[in-house]
Amino acid sequence: MSKEIPYKIYLEENEMPRQWYNVRADMKNKPAPLLNPGTLKPCTLEELSHVFCEDLAKQELDDTTAYIDIPEEIRNFYKMYRPSPLVRAYCLEKALDTPAKIYYKFEGNNTSGSHKLNSAIAQAYYAKKQGLKGVTTETGAGQWGTALSMACAYFGLDCQVYMVKVSYEQKPFRREVMRTYGANVTPSPSMNTEVGRKINAQFPGTTGSLGCAISEAVEAATTQEGYRYVLGSVLSQVLLHQTVIGLETQTACKKFDIVPDIIIGCAGGGSNLGGLISPFVGEKLRGEADYRFIAVEPASCPSLTRGVYAYDFCDTGAVCPLAKMYTLGSTFIPSANHAGGLRYHGMSSILSQLYDDGILEARAVEQISVFEAAQQFARTEGILPAPESSHAIRAALDEALKCKETGEEKTILFGLTGTGYFDMVAYQKFNDGQMSDYIPTDEELNESISKMPKVD
Amino acid sequence: MSKEIPYKIYLEENEMPRQWYNVRADMKNKPAPLLNPGTLKPCTLEELSHVFCEDLAKQELDDTTAYIDIPEEIRNFYKMYRPSPLVRAYCLEKALDTPAKIYYKFEGNNTSGSHKLNSAIAQAYYAKKQGLKGVTTETGAGQWGTALSMACAYFGLDCQVYMVKVSYEQKPFRREVMRTYGANVTPSPSMNTEVGRKINAQFPGTTGSLGCAISEAVEAATTQEGYRYVLGSVLSQVLLHQTVIGLETQTACKKFDIVPDIIIGCAGGGSNLGGLISPFVGEKLRGEADYRFIAVEPASCPSLTRGVYAYDFCDTGAVCPLAKMYTLGSTFIPSANHAGGLRYHGMSSILSQLYDDGILEARAVEQISVFEAAQQFARTEGILPAPESSHAIRAALDEALKCKETGEEKTILFGLTGTGYFDMVAYQKFNDGQMSDYIPTDEELNESISKMPKVD
Repeated sequence: MSKEIPYKIYLEENEMPRQWYNVRADMKNKPAPLLNPGTLKPCTLEELSHVFCEDLAKQELDDTTAYIDIPEEIRNFYKMYRPSPLVRAYCLEKALDTPAKIYYKFEGNNTSGSHKLNSAIAQAYYAKKQGLKGVTTETGAGQWGTALSMACAYFGLDCQVYMVKVSYEQKPFRREVMRTYGANVTPSPSMNTEVGRKINAQFPGTTGSLGCAISEAVEAATTQEGYRYVLGSVLSQVLLHQTVIGLETQTACKKFDIVPDIIIGCAGGGSNLGGLISPFVGEKLRGEADYRFIAVEPASCPSLTRGVYAYDFCDTGAVCPLAKMYTLGSTFIPSANHAGGLRYHGMSSILSQLYDDGILEARAVEQISVFEAAQQFARTEGILPAPESSHAIRAALDEALKCKETGEEKTILFGLTGTGYFDMVAYQKFNDGQMSDYIPTDEELNESISKMPKVD
Repeated sequence: MSKEIPYKIYLEENEMPRQWYNVRADMKNKPAPLLNPGTLKPCTLEELSHVFCEDLAKQELDDTTAYIDIPEEIRNFYKMYRPSPLVRAYCLEKALDTPAKIYYKFEGNNTSGSHKLNSAIAQAYYAKKQGLKGVTTETGAGQWGTALSMACAYFGLDCQVYMVKVSYEQKPFRREVMRTYGANVTPSPSMNTEVGRKINAQFPGTTGSLGCAISEAVEAATTQEGYRYVLGSVLSQVLLHQTVIGLETQTACKKFDIVPDIIIGCAGGGSNLGGLISPFVGEKLRGEADYRFIAVEPASCPSLTRGVYAYDFCDTGAVCPLAKMYTLGSTFIPSANHAGGLRYHGMSSILSQLYDDGILEARAVEQISVFEAAQQFARTEGILPAPESSHAIRAALDEALKCKETGEEKTILFGLTGTGYFDMVAYQKFNDGQMSDYIPTDEELNESISKMPKVD
């Protein structure tokens, strides 16, 4: 007889992970190395250490060590908002009238509102350990910037955030959260950096772009003594830190004899999905268990389902290393109509390799159906989900409804990455019936893909 | 040897309360009864049942039953977001370098962002049980309206929220959360009600007031078949439901041998403070234990510390019953300068009686010092607190700093009622150094107090 499952499973403190899991160690086909954009040769530790903290650069390059200790200082910070609950969606199951069992791992119970804090605190820790004064980063809507601000406040580090100007002006709430945590938030393009001054001169009155903000943040990191640049997704080091999600989930599942058939996550740069599934992927790669993994991406930015697997720039400004990944081309910009996050043109190189190897499935979902799922979830489970997370909800609902048709009692587990409290403009559009779907044409995708660097 | 205290104490599901605790049963001096505003005689069950659901009217009048069963449907809903954690503020203690031990009970981990949901779900349940179609209420900033919308979505009830027009227009985010949960949100004054039409005619272009919204909500409840009016604070029924906070806290304390010396909560209408302290007050009244209880109110709306203890209207529109309470007079309106919530002119009649009996202490704190405490708390404990909750943080910090001076290892427990994600306009004022303090003059208070009804 299986154990009675509570609505929410919280691990005890002594059950929390003490090591991150590096799935690359178990991958037969390793992710392709990052390339130096100048030489097109694999980046060395020294090269990466000019931009990133040294320990983080080491983690980025390490594809053989399976378990990496989580330093005690980070584990103590994790204890303030973790373990996150693994929730049995009893009310949603009832509303759907499905024989499926639905679980979600909820990462939204912290002020950053998402899983981003898991890596932000790790990156801030290594910066502090290296004796740095501070870190720089870029942010769009502000989720990553908020997480980093919180982490820097904790370790007493200076935090310089370049925030896309249009968001800085139109979305003042996240900006004020960052400022409350002591971060220095600058609208980008600014007059602080050479690249910012140049863009301001060239395009007077521009409201900025993420690509420009990245370039400013990288310049600020490399031209100030004692600073490094940090990034919230895509990189393998970020996926490594995010495995705390999957490791907690794995422990909770074992404790309560839960065996998921399908594990689902939304995928932008891939940090949340990679963090959730890594330990389970490890089991599968080692032949210990079998699971289906589904990456859910927006139909308006379909890097896995319609992109190509090739070397590309990670940033629009083309200053960062090149990564081999599923990509739509770094010049691809999703329609402004698209409100649901997950706007990144590429995908984590780890997940890209797993997808190419057939370990990971992918599907694209449309915006209105995503918000319909979000609304149903909010009304039954009581949590207002982030639009990004709601992509995973959509796929979980679809799988649960399939079970209703077939009568199968599958166990579906998905990652609920965060809350949508700062996304009410998008919800308002949906509530007012003003939301529409947008799928890029083949011509559009071909154009941005054709502009990619020719490396292979 | 005392047990090792984890950062966060989560009770098991089977340790969660199955009954609410009605502190009035243990009070020798009972709170004075509500009076009918027309007859000035104690309200009967029948009179109250015209406005409130019958079971809730019964709870309002019951001052003898110590324990009241929490229906299973409500306990199941509680399981979706409760138990709330009792948190040991290790990082804050370290930052303050205090020998005091600080704990807080955090009620913000749900989409309403506060403890309000504890009573909203109870009130929605009894409305559903009575076979009603829906409920009406008013909301200012929208916290209570959000909680009620979530509760009504869960039970499939119509939810009609009259939202002060200026908030409806200037604070659209909470409005959209309510709409996402299916609530019907109307800017007040509206053209839906007689009182609304009258006010619109009399004051063209008015942006509304809470008093007017209450009057509209009460009219809407009493003129539509199958509707009742519900309220989020002040009433004894609301305090009863909120005892789930204190009961969980009490169980967690006993489980880990935690004995608080001081228990602190912010006080607007009193629902959170009353809910937190009731079980501990019960112990004190029965002579089983001794605790200090501190109500913290804003210096700009000091009902306990500078009000009078007398019968007054609960609402500005004077349509609701009269309550005997500490009050500044129902015509008192806190300065617009005051950003921190807790704007209610009166106080729960239960807490008023406890204060009058010397069981409960009270102190008033100023706005800037409250936001300073909020900022320090956010940066060390990682949670961005609601301005209301931050009043309790201020007092807890002050007590902990006193311990630093005296070397006493006191145990301080406070209620962290919610998060400040929708209060960033106030935080921005603080971040920009644009915030100021405001304390009403004796003349101002004398004026509103002199306009009170003469009942005693």
